[in-house]
Amino acid sequence: MKLNDLLNQTSEWLKGSGPKSDIVISSRIRFARNLVKAPFSDWATKDQKKDALSMIKKAMESAGFLKDYTFFDMAELSEIDRQFLVERHLMSLEHARNPEYKALVVDNSEIISIMINEEDHLRIQVLKSGFNLTEAWRIINKIDGKINKKLEYAYSSKWGYLTACPTNTGTAMRASVMLHLPALVLTKQVGKVLETVAKLSLAIRGLYGEGTEAAGNFFQISNQVTLGRAEEDIIGNIESIINQVIAREANARHVLMTQDKDTLSDKTWRAYGTLKSAHMITSDETMRLLSIVRLGVDLGVIKDIDIKSINSLFILTQPAHLQKFEGKASPSNERDVVRARLIRERLKK
Amino acid sequence: MKLNDLLNQTSEWLKGSGPKSDIVISSRIRFARNLVKAPFSDWATKDQKKDALSMIKKAMESAGFLKDYTFFDMAELSEIDRQFLVERHLMSLEHARNPEYKALVVDNSEIISIMINEEDHLRIQVLKSGFNLTEAWRIINKIDGKINKKLEYAYSSKWGYLTACPTNTGTAMRASVMLHLPALVLTKQVGKVLETVAKLSLAIRGLYGEGTEAAGNFFQISNQVTLGRAEEDIIGNIESIINQVIAREANARHVLMTQDKDTLSDKTWRAYGTLKSAHMITSDETMRLLSIVRLGVDLGVIKDIDIKSINSLFILTQPAHLQKFEGKASPSNERDVVRARLIRERLKK
Repeated sequence: MKLNDLLNQTSEWLKGSGPKSDIVISSRIRFARNLVKAPFSDWATKDQKKDALSMIKKAMESAGFLKDYTFFDMAELSEIDRQFLVERHLMSLEHARNPEYKALVVDNSEIISIMINEEDHLRIQVLKSGFNLTEAWRIINKIDGKINKKLEYAYSSKWGYLTACPTNTGTAMRASVMLHLPALVLTKQVGKVLETVAKLSLAIRGLYGEGTEAAGNFFQISNQVTLGRAEEDIIGNIESIINQVIAREANARHVLMTQDKDTLSDKTWRAYGTLKSAHMITSDETMRLLSIVRLGVDLGVIKDIDIKSINSLFILTQPAHLQKFEGKASPSNERDVVRARLIRERLKK
Repeated sequence: MKLNDLLNQTSEWLKGSGPKSDIVISSRIRFARNLVKAPFSDWATKDQKKDALSMIKKAMESAGFLKDYTFFDMAELSEIDRQFLVERHLMSLEHARNPEYKALVVDNSEIISIMINEEDHLRIQVLKSGFNLTEAWRIINKIDGKINKKLEYAYSSKWGYLTACPTNTGTAMRASVMLHLPALVLTKQVGKVLETVAKLSLAIRGLYGEGTEAAGNFFQISNQVTLGRAEEDIIGNIESIINQVIAREANARHVLMTQDKDTLSDKTWRAYGTLKSAHMITSDETMRLLSIVRLGVDLGVIKDIDIKSINSLFILTQPAHLQKFEGKASPSNERDVVRARLIRERLKK
C-alpha cells in the first residue's frame, strides 16, 4: 500500500458499521511498550534511536508483519503527508513534529497502527468503528503478543509495563471512545453529564485528542488510571460509564424529536443545504454543520446520505487531506474555497 | 376571471420581461379621479358611497370595460382574499380594511387595476414590468380617457384634478418605480444615494408602499409633487433620477463581481441553499434570502433559476397567498412551515 492509496479509501473506524454507531464513532485501545534493551526515546542519542528503530523494524519483519502492513519512515514523508496521517487518526501530532528516526506501521484497513519511537518505543493502536472496546482489545492483544515474541519489553513484576511517562505505567493501556453528542449539546445537558464522567476519573478530550476542543460535538472519553487495575477492569468500567452517556444522548435525541421536530428538521436541513451550496467554508463551520447533519441522518430526518459519507467528510475536509486532493499546498483562504468545492462534490453523489 | 385564477398566474409586472429588469422590478402610474356629482368618499354617507359605486360600475359597463376585466365587490370577499389582492399590488391596504361599498376592477394580466371608493372615487393604476413609465403612462391615459367619456371628473382649470387629499391635487398622478438595490446595500452606499434622491423631492418607500420598510432591498421611488407641473415633466424628471440610481447599482454590482467574486458567490449560493432546504422560514428571512439570490441570478452566478420565478416567490410567500395555497387560515408559526415547503417545491422545479 502507498500513502496516497489511503486518500481514496474510508478508514474502517469511519464506516459507521460498528455497534451503536449512531452515537459512538469509534473505540480505540492503545498500548505503550518499550524495549528492555534500549533507553526511552526522549533520553536516547540519535544513534540509540536509530538502533531501536531498526531493531523494531527487523523484529516486525521476522514476525511476518510487513507483508500485510505498510511501513512509513517519518523522515521520508513530507510535512503534509505526516499531517495527513495525523488527520486520519493513525498517529499523534507529536509523532509528526520531529520525524527523525520515527516510523509508522499501518494495516490496509487502518484498524491497526503502530508508532515507533514516539514517546515510547512502541505505541500500538487499534481503532474500531462504533462502541467496540472488547473487539479492539482482542485484536491489540494478538498484535502485542506477536511483537513480544520477537522483542523483549521493559516490564516490572511490581509496576507492570514501564513507560516514558509514569502516568502510563502499569497496564500502559489507554482505552478511549469517541462519542457524538449533539443532542446533549443542543439541550445544554452536556456540561453536567461530562462533569459526572470526569468525577469518575475519566478524561474528556476533542476529536484530535489531548489539547483539542470538542469541535463538531465530538467528545473522546478515556481512562486516566493505568496502574493497579487489570485491563479488563479498566475496559469494563469505561464501558459501563459510556453506556450511561449513550443512554443520556439517546434520550435527549428522543426529546428533541418528540417535542420540537419541526425546529430540529429545519436546523438539520439548513445545515445540509449550506454544506451543499457554500462556495467558501472554514474548517470550524464545516465541523459544526456536519455535526448537525449527522444528527439529522441518525434521526432519520435526512435520508439521502449515509453516515459513512458524513463521517468521512469530517476527515476529508481537514487541511492536509484537502491539499493532497488538490495536489499542492495552498494558503488557508484558498483552502476554504477548495473545501467548499470538495463538500459540494461529495454531497452531490 | 375568478379571484382564485390569479393564484396560478404570474402578474405581468413580476415577469422580469421589461426594460432594465435586472435592477428595476416594475413601473407604476396611478391617477386619482373623483366624480363631480358625488362627495369625496371619506365625507360621504353610506348611501352616497353606494350611489357612487353603482354609478361608476354602470359607466364602466357601458364603456365596455367589464368584458375583459373582472369586477370584485370588496364586501363579498373574505379578509384573506382582500389581503391577497393587496399582496399582489393590485390595491392598497386601506382599500382592504373597510370593504363596504368598495370595489376593484382588474384586467386579466394584472397590468391595470382600478380601485373604486378608496380615498378617491377612482384610483386607476397601471403596473408594468421593468423600467417602463412611458408605456404605463400611455396605457393609463387610454383607460382614463375611456372612463372620462362616461363620467364627469371633478376638475378645476386652476388646480387641475381635485382629490380627497390636497397633496394629490393637480395632475393627481403618482409615478413610481420599484428598484432592487442589493449591491448598494451590501457596499453601504444606499443611504447616500437615497439621501440625494430625497433631496430632489422624490419619496422613498418599501415593497408595499407608504409606511412599509425596505425589506429585501426593494426601494420604491415616486414623485411627491403633483401640482404645477405637467405629467410629462414629472415622468421625465423621475426617469432621469432613476437612471442615475440604476447606474450606481450597476456599478456597485460590477465592483462586487470584480473585487470579491468568491465571497459574493458564496453568499448567493448559501442563500439559495437555505431556501431550498429550510423547513421553517419567516417572511422576513425569505425576503432577505430571495433578495440575495435575485442578485446572484442577475449577475449570472446562479444559472439554474430564472428571475420570473424568484420575483414570483416574493409575492407567493406572503401570508394571504400561503393561506390560499393551503386552502385554510393558519397561525403564523404554522405558516413558517408552509412557506418553507412552498419555497422548496417551487425551487425544485
